[in-house]
Amino acid sequence: MIGGGQGAFIGGVHRIAARIAGNWQLVAGAFSSTPEKSRASGIEIGVDPSRVYGSYVEMIEAELALPVNQRIEAVSIVTPNHMHAAPAIAAMEAGFDVIIDKPLADSMENARAIADAADRTGRRIAVTHTYTGYPLVKQARELIASGKFGKVRRVAVKYTQDWLSRAADLEGNKQAAWRVDPKQSGDAGAFGDIGTHAANLAEFITGERITRICAELTMLDGRAIDDDGAALFHLSGGGKGTLTASQVLVGDINDLAISVYCDEAGLHWRQEEPNAMRIGYRDRPTEIWHAGANRAYLSPEVVSIQRTPGGHPEGYLEAFANIYQAFGNELRGAAGTEPGYATMEDTLAGMKFLAASLESSRRGAVWVDL
Amino acid sequence: MIGGGQGAFIGGVHRIAARIAGNWQLVAGAFSSTPEKSRASGIEIGVDPSRVYGSYVEMIEAELALPVNQRIEAVSIVTPNHMHAAPAIAAMEAGFDVIIDKPLADSMENARAIADAADRTGRRIAVTHTYTGYPLVKQARELIASGKFGKVRRVAVKYTQDWLSRAADLEGNKQAAWRVDPKQSGDAGAFGDIGTHAANLAEFITGERITRICAELTMLDGRAIDDDGAALFHLSGGGKGTLTASQVLVGDINDLAISVYCDEAGLHWRQEEPNAMRIGYRDRPTEIWHAGANRAYLSPEVVSIQRTPGGHPEGYLEAFANIYQAFGNELRGAAGTEPGYATMEDTLAGMKFLAASLESSRRGAVWVDL
Amino acid sequence: MIGGGQGAFIGGVHRIAARIAGNWQLVAGAFSSTPEKSRASGIEIGVDPSRVYGSYVEMIEAELALPVNQRIEAVSIVTPNHMHAAPAIAAMEAGFDVIIDKPLADSMENARAIADAADRTGRRIAVTHTYTGYPLVKQARELIASGKFGKVRRVAVKYTQDWLSRAADLEGNKQAAWRVDPKQSGDAGAFGDIGTHAANLAEFITGERITRICAELTMLDGRAIDDDGAALFHLSGGGKGTLTASQVLVGDINDLAISVYCDEAGLHWRQEEPNAMRIGYRDRPTEIWHAGANRAYLSPEVVSIQRTPGGHPEGYLEAFANIYQAFGNELRGAAGTEPGYATMEDTLAGMKFLAASLESSRRGAVWVDL
Amino acid sequence: MIGGGQGAFIGGVHRIAARIAGNWQLVAGAFSSTPEKSRASGIEIGVDPSRVYGSYVEMIEAELALPVNQRIEAVSIVTPNHMHAAPAIAAMEAGFDVIIDKPLADSMENARAIADAADRTGRRIAVTHTYTGYPLVKQARELIASGKFGKVRRVAVKYTQDWLSRAADLEGNKQAAWRVDPKQSGDAGAFGDIGTHAANLAEFITGERITRICAELTMLDGRAIDDDGAALFHLSGGGKGTLTASQVLVGDINDLAISVYCDEAGLHWRQEEPNAMRIGYRDRPTEIWHAGANRAYLSPEVVSIQRTPGGHPEGYLEAFANIYQAFGNELRGAAGTEPGYATMEDTLAGMKFLAASLESSRRGAVWVDL
Repeated sequence: MIGGGQGAFIGGVHRIAARIAGNWQLVAGAFSSTPEKSRASGIEIGVDPSRVYGSYVEMIEAELALPVNQRIEAVSIVTPNHMHAAPAIAAMEAGFDVIIDKPLADSMENARAIADAADRTGRRIAVTHTYTGYPLVKQARELIASGKFGKVRRVAVKYTQDWLSRAADLEGNKQAAWRVDPKQSGDAGAFGDIGTHAANLAEFITGERITRICAELTMLDGRAIDDDGAALFHLSGGGKGTLTASQVLVGDINDLAISVYCDEAGLHWRQEEPNAMRIGYRDRPTEIWHAGANRAYLSPEVVSIQRTPGGHPEGYLEAFANIYQAFGNELRGAAGTEPGYATMEDTLAGMKFLAASLESSRRGAVWVDL
Repeated sequence: MIGGGQGAFIGGVHRIAARIAGNWQLVAGAFSSTPEKSRASGIEIGVDPSRVYGSYVEMIEAELALPVNQRIEAVSIVTPNHMHAAPAIAAMEAGFDVIIDKPLADSMENARAIADAADRTGRRIAVTHTYTGYPLVKQARELIASGKFGKVRRVAVKYTQDWLSRAADLEGNKQAAWRVDPKQSGDAGAFGDIGTHAANLAEFITGERITRICAELTMLDGRAIDDDGAALFHLSGGGKGTLTASQVLVGDINDLAISVYCDEAGLHWRQEEPNAMRIGYRDRPTEIWHAGANRAYLSPEVVSIQRTPGGHPEGYLEAFANIYQAFGNELRGAAGTEPGYATMEDTLAGMKFLAASLESSRRGAVWVDL
Repeated sequence: MIGGGQGAFIGGVHRIAARIAGNWQLVAGAFSSTPEKSRASGIEIGVDPSRVYGSYVEMIEAELALPVNQRIEAVSIVTPNHMHAAPAIAAMEAGFDVIIDKPLADSMENARAIADAADRTGRRIAVTHTYTGYPLVKQARELIASGKFGKVRRVAVKYTQDWLSRAADLEGNKQAAWRVDPKQSGDAGAFGDIGTHAANLAEFITGERITRICAELTMLDGRAIDDDGAALFHLSGGGKGTLTASQVLVGDINDLAISVYCDEAGLHWRQEEPNAMRIGYRDRPTEIWHAGANRAYLSPEVVSIQRTPGGHPEGYLEAFANIYQAFGNELRGAAGTEPGYATMEDTLAGMKFLAASLESSRRGAVWVDL
Repeated sequence: MIGGGQGAFIGGVHRIAARIAGNWQLVAGAFSSTPEKSRASGIEIGVDPSRVYGSYVEMIEAELALPVNQRIEAVSIVTPNHMHAAPAIAAMEAGFDVIIDKPLADSMENARAIADAADRTGRRIAVTHTYTGYPLVKQARELIASGKFGKVRRVAVKYTQDWLSRAADLEGNKQAAWRVDPKQSGDAGAFGDIGTHAANLAEFITGERITRICAELTMLDGRAIDDDGAALFHLSGGGKGTLTASQVLVGDINDLAISVYCDEAGLHWRQEEPNAMRIGYRDRPTEIWHAGANRAYLSPEVVSIQRTPGGHPEGYLEAFANIYQAFGNELRGAAGTEPGYATMEDTLAGMKFLAASLESSRRGAVWVDL
């Protein structure tokens, strides 16, 4: 693992997810760019001190020096966005597969550089768009792919939070600080951090791509990058959509929610209550589909990624674990019919969405092609 | 009453609403432009046959011939949109106050003509934007007006239905037929029929006006006017918003829902479950405010328009009745501090919203000022 | 109308319900046992002063003196429970049909006396167990009667409120005062007032009768009759059940809710959100059935008692109106296949439920046969 | 670990829970009473083959032969109920602390024997009443313990499922088979399996004990032990309650839900949506309390057992992990102010509840003291 030391949030989530997955073990890490902090973090985490490194460069070098069957198999990168590209490329060039926390990179250039390195080295990359790890999200994708509901007419997706709703939220908060600093996060704030999740979810469920967007991003007085915004968009299949991403909408905790309307049904899923999906029809009762490893009406692949029978709620950590598990399975040659994680193509689509949103907004919320 | 004969929907709703209100009596009507149908409808409705007329012209003339204390006090116009202006103006010129089903008219010109007639004659007009008759909608408006939640940051409002989701829905359906026929409905379809309700609700609750809009309206293949659309908009207080209006989103029955986010709270209300309003905060538990004439935390004005204590759900017909009741109270000099119905100013704002939306969409979803 | 003067709650509800029904007119009344108060109430309500009477005896006499086509057709009795029997019997003996607010009477003896008078005179009686007037409650009854879900296994019904949760609630509250006074309410408090509604709902939906009960009724310190209680019961078809009725459970506003579990499905309905019914299955998604006059999957009889299409919520007053409407239809020879209101048999079953509950509790919560 | 081999459900849950907890490692096991099956399971699970044993006797012997710092620290017993007592007592006598899946034992005698062994040996026992591991359940307990809501008036608790709703469910299902076989499960079916969870939840949240019960247990035709039942009960603080436990109520998946009504508030929590708790008041809006490690209004102890900020749903596995984590902390001398798992006293109370329920039902649903 690179990053994820003391005070970081997402690194700990990756570690629990990997433990739940059960097909990963954390054996080495460069947990901070400050060597002492990396070492202190490593002890806390319980990694063998001899494999806690002061930098990712040191880690890659030392691990390569170990016999193949003792060295790490893959690297998980959980640093701020601007620190994704360098370690990812170095790791791939050293022969390691890579897990990267989303978004792939802080700029389109860096994203492309990572993609090129993957092509060049033949290494695999999984980007942790966590929310596609939820069983019912996969079920929604399957239902729409089956064609039984017809074409997608309209998507409404939102990802809204309130943890940056006050001016003071930028002070004394490590996560907040890098996320709203263009130098660390890239040019995008909320749209980069969570708007990309929303776009990815819409693309994943519909099986389509966003092709045009008209976005208006705003921010509280005194801020440098967007903390709130909304967009109209077009899908490759001809449908239309709306997307809202914000970190200043008070009372919304982590409210990722999507509605996908097709010719014959409307599907609704909300991350905060992830174990139920509502499907509305015109001529018959609305349905609630429940998650659970014993729900007969779910597809076998969806059943296979659940650990408990219906009514034993699995949540965010299990969704995250599903991504680790799928990537682990793939590295060991046991992949399912779908990758089970965001591919390079998916994640580059997310980068394009972000670039187009920023450009649209900068030019006065005009339409921009992706 | 003008309009509302056999086969019409909204006329019957007006009649029940007036009966619930308790301060109105239906004593005369021209229920159809076909005299025989008007008469047959009148008998069914239970109006004295001597006061069932073959046309609104006939009605106004005959009623004016009655002694003042026997003639009608006001006229309720429930005809299709293109038949609003002529009877409304005639009624006002004859000295009658007027209730008009929304939208005010089929075009900006006709709307202005009605407004001018009102100015000229000094008559009062209530437009039945039903949804502002709900107690918790009024409570939301009061809460925001009080300033305790700070400024409005973002509004998300939707009004979506599915009753026109199929091509065949235009055949053999009287309501559908006129609503999607530009000659009867005006240039707007869903945006005119229900988008105006959504815009009105947003303006009513925030106490602001929509000032700019970027709207994209679409329709199913083979249709002449919009049945689906979405927009980004700006509010006069500086906040931003999104609005979706559609009659082709499968599974959404009559789904008018609004979220209003302020600096310190987010308010959420949904018409299909109108007796609860959710208010989210950042640092304390979410609240559910309940309707009911005995809820101590509701404002006195909101309490006064409810007929039953909490937990005895009042619905659409009672909200509609509140509009009749408020207008009746005003005509009798017993108005509250707020009008209690959509005023001419409110309704002209709605017409402007509609005109700007149509123009924006026609020009490729560019921004248009209202 | 007998009763329902100033300060009363349920009388006003009856009047609005009758207006919504549309096939009733309130033309005469003895609104209070105090003649002056009756007269003042009559003026407020808008009844012709010449037909506002000082007592029900006076009313019956005076109305009988009018020509048949001018006199009242039926009498609505909305007095406290101990004042039901005398006017009801007098009215029936004078040839008038009768509507009585539930419960039928304050004691089994008085209930039987009313039933005997009905038999003797051939007059019809409707008891307003309001909650069976809800469309989805009727739909639930039809679904179970159809046998497609198999036998009823278990019923869980509750009717809980909090308006008597404090000792002080008995002071200065007219409704509270008579309801908790054994001399006016009969021996039962909450079980009589709302427990009977819960039992009636269970019997109505299942189409069965409660045959045995084990009930434990309690009350706050210092009270004379029950304000809270729970029971186990048996149904005539072999199923089991639980029932809770309370007016001291804080936070429950008017929470009547029922679950009926059959061999192949479980149905769930809650009065505070009356326009949705949840049906759970074992092998397929849960269904939400929606109310609405245009929902194709509802039975024709259920469609016929709704005034608006889906998504326009109808509530308590409309459910109440359905009872008036059905009784009016029957008196005019236009009844449906089901009575549409609580019959004498239904209401006597309710009285037996109540008597058995009281006896069970008095004897230490032992089982008592009905 | 003892038990939990191939085909078992709860063993796998214990293993994931321990991994999430992060302070446990599974290093040895006797996963089945059939040695070959134990070995095959051990390989699948990933335990070092040299520490996969053919029986618990063998395991205890072999582990005791290892140096103290290499041998197991504690034993997790996940066998069917009738196989709890022997290994638990043997493990404690060998000096190991013990985790036991609930219920403690298949009979009161065996439960007492385990308790005696714990007293005799000084070993600690944690019984995994999973549902008390949920953060909001702990918050509910704290709120009630604080006294701010007054005394507990009434509890309504249910735990209902449908996986045994059909006669055929007993065939070919390992879990079903032992749970409905009195020889393996003890005399109790649903009341033992999940009724004890419901009773434990009620006692945990209220901080009181069930003192008297009147229970009626039933079963489908052809079954030997209860699969459905309901009870009235008394609490030690004077409050009353109802409890329903069933495995044959169709549509209920794993529906553990509790309402606790106090003098000044009513708390409601439902396991299938565990991250929200509803609190109703009489004079102010209902509150929804949200789970999340960053919710300022939650108590520090509740915050400390959550892994992610609000809106990132944690579920059943995390609740289970909290029990492992708390027991691990205690064994290492780092316990919180509350044990964090069901103590021997809690679990003996559960055994008494079960014994009294069975006796009550057998004697015709009479009242039995605990």
